[in-house]
Amino acid sequence: MPIVGYGVAKVLESGYPDFKKGDLVWGVTKWEEYSLITMTGSLFKIQHTDVPLSYYTGLLGMPGMTTYAGFYELCSPKKGEYVFVSSAFGAVGQLVGQLAKLMGCYVVGSAGSKEKVDILKSKFGFDEAFNYKEEHDLDAALKRCFPEGIDIYFDNVGGKMLDAVLLNMRFHGHIAVAGMISQYNLDQPEGIRNLLSLVYKRIRIEGFTVYDYYHLFPNFLDLVLPYIREGKIAYVEDTAEGLENGPSALVGIFSGQNVGKQVVVVARE
Amino acid sequence: MPIVGYGVAKVLESGYPDFKKGDLVWGVTKWEEYSLITMTGSLFKIQHTDVPLSYYTGLLGMPGMTTYAGFYELCSPKKGEYVFVSSAFGAVGQLVGQLAKLMGCYVVGSAGSKEKVDILKSKFGFDEAFNYKEEHDLDAALKRCFPEGIDIYFDNVGGKMLDAVLLNMRFHGHIAVAGMISQYNLDQPEGIRNLLSLVYKRIRIEGFTVYDYYHLFPNFLDLVLPYIREGKIAYVEDTAEGLENGPSALVGIFSGQNVGKQVVVVARE
Repeated sequence: MPIVGYGVAKVLESGYPDFKKGDLVWGVTKWEEYSLITMTGSLFKIQHTDVPLSYYTGLLGMPGMTTYAGFYELCSPKKGEYVFVSSAFGAVGQLVGQLAKLMGCYVVGSAGSKEKVDILKSKFGFDEAFNYKEEHDLDAALKRCFPEGIDIYFDNVGGKMLDAVLLNMRFHGHIAVAGMISQYNLDQPEGIRNLLSLVYKRIRIEGFTVYDYYHLFPNFLDLVLPYIREGKIAYVEDTAEGLENGPSALVGIFSGQNVGKQVVVVARE
Repeated sequence: MPIVGYGVAKVLESGYPDFKKGDLVWGVTKWEEYSLITMTGSLFKIQHTDVPLSYYTGLLGMPGMTTYAGFYELCSPKKGEYVFVSSAFGAVGQLVGQLAKLMGCYVVGSAGSKEKVDILKSKFGFDEAFNYKEEHDLDAALKRCFPEGIDIYFDNVGGKMLDAVLLNMRFHGHIAVAGMISQYNLDQPEGIRNLLSLVYKRIRIEGFTVYDYYHLFPNFLDLVLPYIREGKIAYVEDTAEGLENGPSALVGIFSGQNVGKQVVVVARE
């Protein structure tokens, strides 16, 4: 089985009317120099080439669309709102925070190391950030960062953090759940005890997957491309040259060797 | 302190331009023969008098609007969908079930006695109903009633039932939380362990209160009044005559002596 992942490619030959020779595409490709792609439903034609093509594997691709779907479509953010992002140093979390700042929101992120927390504040413009591993009382940490409460929570982790957030939501707050990474490997998921807040504070929680929102990809580009061209979004890539260096780059991710989004260059023109 | 509750009254004198002498109103009144009402924000003028005025304390009042807000506004029901209502024998639950049936949904309710379960099916037209006190495994009970899963859950109870429902929701299902009556009197709320379903199945849960939806009262009447006039909605009242019988009627509710919505007639014309 070839490894499947998101990639950028040039069409060399096509039997599908929407793609013709020479088109640049992004989507689910294989780790190959030449691929035969039959699932065209997961391929998108690249219309804008004045930004690095590699961005379509991250900032302008699936993680970017995940951000757009969860933050804009589900949470309907407004200027001045209080926004919290967990796993804020991830590809999605970084972008949620930056887009929220560009909208004029107050943004706090949680991450798993002091270094990440510092970078969230210094490079990505988060108003505040904290290392969840060093907080014995997540409720207290959130109250410290959000004395006025939270309007929007972009949840990537679930579990105890979600439970603590529920205690700190403001009336009519929105929670978009992109993932619950703290729960996937447990024998039994943790119990969430603070759902009464849903009623008391009229809160909405919604789980989602990016695959339901790709029809909004043009809207997402309209929003994000100008920010990228104006240099208003920070984005870091770690590039491995050559398909032969792909396996070690992949292994490196799991020990945190990469700095930013790991990209493998299969070919340059 | 006078007891506050929902009532129907006739305006004898008014210093407020929206209400004039002779108007009939419903809203938050006191248990008095004559009341001075200064909080006009919780009073609604009665426009339709071809239905029993007492209905405005229940079916056409706050419980009715709660049903409309939670079922129609939050859950966007469609014909053929699978609908579950907990505390289905309550004023709200009865109406949710009947409106869902009138929309062409499949409806199941849970209640706390065999008698209530029987009436839900025989009188209120539920497709199925079960006594939650006799089900050792709520998940199994729901799977029995909903082999295809649940599209819409109108939650009045929270707790274990909500947790079991989460395991049985269909993709893109909606849960409207009107209350969590099983949780209010616990020292610590029960833990809800199945929230991962939110992500896997892209589910939305939303808590709400009727007070945010009264601007939709005319829409609610447009929907429900024709059904009432055509006799398509079953509604039961238990009437106590005279304000002097109010206290015993109130006490009777807590021991379940009332059959249907308890109304106290203060005056007839």
